[in-house]
Amino acid sequence: MILETIKGPEELKALSIDELNALSGEVRRALLKKLSIHGGHFGSNFGIVETTIALHYVFNSPRDKFVFDVSHQSYTHKMLTGRAEAFLDESKYNEYSGYSAPYESEHDVFTMGHTSTSVSLALGLAKARDLIGNDNKVIAIIGDGSLSGGEALEALNYAGEFDGALIIVVNDNDMSIAENHGGMYKNLKELRDSNGACENNIFKTFGLDYMYVDNGNDIATLIDAFESVKDVDHPIVVHVKTQKGKGYALAEAEKEFWHATAPFDIETGKRLYSKNGSNSYSDITALHLLKRMKEDKSIVSLTAATPTAAGFTKERRDEAGAQFIDVGIAEENALAMASGIAKAGGKPVWAVNSTFLQRTYDQMSHDVCLNCSPVTTLVFASSIYCGSDVTHIGIYDIPMLSNIPNLKYLAPTCKEEYLAMLDWSIDQSKESVAIKIPATKAICSGKSARSDYSECKYEIVENGQEVAVLALGSFFPLGEQVCKALKDEGVDATLVNPMFISELDTDTLDKIGEKHSLVITLEDGILDGGFGEKIARYYSNSKTRVITYGFKKEFPYKYTLDAFLYENRLTVPQIVEDVLKSK
Amino acid sequence: MILETIKGPEELKALSIDELNALSGEVRRALLKKLSIHGGHFGSNFGIVETTIALHYVFNSPRDKFVFDVSHQSYTHKMLTGRAEAFLDESKYNEYSGYSAPYESEHDVFTMGHTSTSVSLALGLAKARDLIGNDNKVIAIIGDGSLSGGEALEALNYAGEFDGALIIVVNDNDMSIAENHGGMYKNLKELRDSNGACENNIFKTFGLDYMYVDNGNDIATLIDAFESVKDVDHPIVVHVKTQKGKGYALAEAEKEFWHATAPFDIETGKRLYSKNGSNSYSDITALHLLKRMKEDKSIVSLTAATPTAAGFTKERRDEAGAQFIDVGIAEENALAMASGIAKAGGKPVWAVNSTFLQRTYDQMSHDVCLNCSPVTTLVFASSIYCGSDVTHIGIYDIPMLSNIPNLKYLAPTCKEEYLAMLDWSIDQSKESVAIKIPATKAICSGKSARSDYSECKYEIVENGQEVAVLALGSFFPLGEQVCKALKDEGVDATLVNPMFISELDTDTLDKIGEKHSLVITLEDGILDGGFGEKIARYYSNSKTRVITYGFKKEFPYKYTLDAFLYENRLTVPQIVEDVLKSK
Repeated sequence: MILETIKGPEELKALSIDELNALSGEVRRALLKKLSIHGGHFGSNFGIVETTIALHYVFNSPRDKFVFDVSHQSYTHKMLTGRAEAFLDESKYNEYSGYSAPYESEHDVFTMGHTSTSVSLALGLAKARDLIGNDNKVIAIIGDGSLSGGEALEALNYAGEFDGALIIVVNDNDMSIAENHGGMYKNLKELRDSNGACENNIFKTFGLDYMYVDNGNDIATLIDAFESVKDVDHPIVVHVKTQKGKGYALAEAEKEFWHATAPFDIETGKRLYSKNGSNSYSDITALHLLKRMKEDKSIVSLTAATPTAAGFTKERRDEAGAQFIDVGIAEENALAMASGIAKAGGKPVWAVNSTFLQRTYDQMSHDVCLNCSPVTTLVFASSIYCGSDVTHIGIYDIPMLSNIPNLKYLAPTCKEEYLAMLDWSIDQSKESVAIKIPATKAICSGKSARSDYSECKYEIVENGQEVAVLALGSFFPLGEQVCKALKDEGVDATLVNPMFISELDTDTLDKIGEKHSLVITLEDGILDGGFGEKIARYYSNSKTRVITYGFKKEFPYKYTLDAFLYENRLTVPQIVEDVLKSK
Repeated sequence: MILETIKGPEELKALSIDELNALSGEVRRALLKKLSIHGGHFGSNFGIVETTIALHYVFNSPRDKFVFDVSHQSYTHKMLTGRAEAFLDESKYNEYSGYSAPYESEHDVFTMGHTSTSVSLALGLAKARDLIGNDNKVIAIIGDGSLSGGEALEALNYAGEFDGALIIVVNDNDMSIAENHGGMYKNLKELRDSNGACENNIFKTFGLDYMYVDNGNDIATLIDAFESVKDVDHPIVVHVKTQKGKGYALAEAEKEFWHATAPFDIETGKRLYSKNGSNSYSDITALHLLKRMKEDKSIVSLTAATPTAAGFTKERRDEAGAQFIDVGIAEENALAMASGIAKAGGKPVWAVNSTFLQRTYDQMSHDVCLNCSPVTTLVFASSIYCGSDVTHIGIYDIPMLSNIPNLKYLAPTCKEEYLAMLDWSIDQSKESVAIKIPATKAICSGKSARSDYSECKYEIVENGQEVAVLALGSFFPLGEQVCKALKDEGVDATLVNPMFISELDTDTLDKIGEKHSLVITLEDGILDGGFGEKIARYYSNSKTRVITYGFKKEFPYKYTLDAFLYENRLTVPQIVEDVLKSK
């Protein structure tokens, strides 16, 4: 096996084209086996095998710097830079990150997991190189889907006046996560159809030099192309047509389904298990919205390239028709557009993962909240229970959202509350609302939830004394467990479902303050800037003591759920111990 | 005077072209007089007079919706929509907002003051119109400078596949605040030079229909153009060439200087007073950075289209040469590029106003802090003392920045501390750092500041007992006054200069806790998610009480400094009163 002999890019350079072609087959087999057992990003990695081999053949990493946008297409790069065991040795599958990770290798420059950043980052590398007087090459590798993100477009524009060498490889497989959206994709198609020669050229309009490579899965062609641009002294785009999912027929045919995958059967392509299901918040959301959309044509569901986050599969998108909008990877436009829809009397519901919401801080503040636009934002994957890499972990949205004026951030604890909040938010026209979806699987409490959330009013679930437990959203079950354990210790605690993250129910807090000497807060997010701090401030000039539970402000580069909860004193015995010591 | 007879757009429609031309002269005279006395945005408003008159002549506001990007070009629109007195009656100059303001008029759809939002917002208005079944027109008016912002580019891309009517007027005066930056401006020049007919066309590459108007200061031509696109059933760009500062020779000649103005003498153009000066933090910053840049070629100063925020006038930019980067209105690219520079061994210093920093929450979190990139961010206009409209007020950056992991946010209290922090940050290579510039004018304390800020260590300025005052950054002088007033009341308070916004000096806090029963915190920002809440949390399970002072979480649509401070109990007598009651 050639792949096993490749300890770094230098070994690659001694190989013949035939051997490189053989290597690409080995890489694909390793990818297929690992992804079938472990899961991961599929389509783009299968499409970019030859491009990556050719890049490492022509350039000299780590002296020359590759920046793989979003990291979804970096698996072959990992294999060729001393990390083949991450794909060849089943016992090592979990030891490596699925993303670009400088702590793993000097061949990875940045930790990254959000799209559309590579051209900006590469521009910075090139600028510093020129100021310092180095002469290494800098190569950004960006997928066509990522081009629609504002950060990428800003960078392409600036690159058009950048006075130095920079190579931008556009890996065009004609797909985003789902299908691409936006006018530029018509232009990319024209470019592909005309072998790069059509009249209008988006890259040239940004002032960039340009070359087109039609056969982006042919190593010899790619090597020639990269050799020809290697020493160009200005920014140039190399537009490479690749096939998403190349080499696995099922993935070539069903590109969206195979963007990323859970473990699957190689023969049939069938997933061995599914994260979603009838009790997933994604499915619940899509089904509920589809029902409501049929009754009210002014309800619109929006996404920025992640339609299935809220359960909108292809079939459901078709069912929703004009009432479903996918703007492509363009979160800023999605949310600002939602504000426009709301101002004109529509009822927009924007679903987004917590980590990508970060892209829209200003749009949430200015376009939406400053204008009191009745936009409903559904924040998915915003719980430690959802798991994820450090680049996608959803534990920062409470400080991000709950301190923006005019935004009501709600935390339901069960399916019933969630749907009641969603309906209330859609039907009101005065407030900007966000809802923190509690983890992945829905809890059905069976109870009926209140229908009006205009007034901030906590729910006292159990009346006790001495100690009050304010258990927010997805941590409500933890609060129930803590109260039960405290009861075993002879402490009859009060259990509160606060529901409102961004406001304080001062009436209830005052009553609690009269009867309880200790309040504890539980929140599924970092403590800094969060819910517990608001409670601590409220009681700070009183005799009521507060202990806040949540996560330390940090980026957990590697973590496991149980250890992470333990480190943050978020297990029931730890909390009970603290309470008994403090009450 | 025709202008006085225009109570709304309907009166305009009865006028002849000659009368409309006369009206444009009256509008310019009103603009000139008001801006010479009151100050405001100059160049773009002078350039867009005829376009605005023609728009209101052809379309029917408020039924048809105009969205003026960033509002810098909305003064004529205000005059034509019942608000001429804001420009004709000197006693009313202050009664109206300088920005689009729905509370003033039904002709203003959104409160807005950040650039690049109009196309997204207009897309939303158009989408809701189509779903609801209305048939009004929607017109976004966006300047060429604003086109480089990610939100605008994302929206242009989506507009290219939008299935409905939308008119995008590009007001091209060939200038941003300063000169434009980015390759697209070469394309705009080609379009202007070729009367809109050159081979490559950026708008067409986004899939948009297009027309060009060369004489954008001629009302009859503009009316014809708008009439011709009025009923187009799909998105179309009307690219209008205008002259920034048109009608005032000095402004036509010196476009950057006349982007916005303080009160000035009409004859000479001389500003009646200047906000800056040798003791402004802007000047101090530019001079210090220029000095350091000369000694170290790896230091780079970056801006996103607001070079003078950090004192970089044209002359100073020329002096800095390749070590100064203006990326145009593109904050995301600026900060991500800074991260790339830092990773390659450069020393980037990014200066930005607090309000525009909002655009880069994700870039700060992921591109910079997740990567521990040693980028220095200078946060200007981040104080209530800087004043500003609700769209630019700088009271939200503490919660925004101080809760991002791996970011050290520092608050100097005087010039000496500021420069020491700046030097330390530039010279270290481990941490991502932001510095909150204290208001506009620098206080020279005359003391020598510490040189190392790697360890979080507060400074005890005065040792007292019972009460400790933690006075952060620009509120340090307020803390001094409070301590003095408390002394008059017989309370010998401890005065602390915390300096570190995003971290806690737990050693010092523990010592303070032992000796003081009451801690008060003073911060120049909203309380929610801020510095005081971190202190309140730290002491929340102890006997030490805390009172936090800062601003209520709100958007103050209209405010005056003194009243705002009073409402937030931020005057010395109010604080003293609270302390005496609580200690």
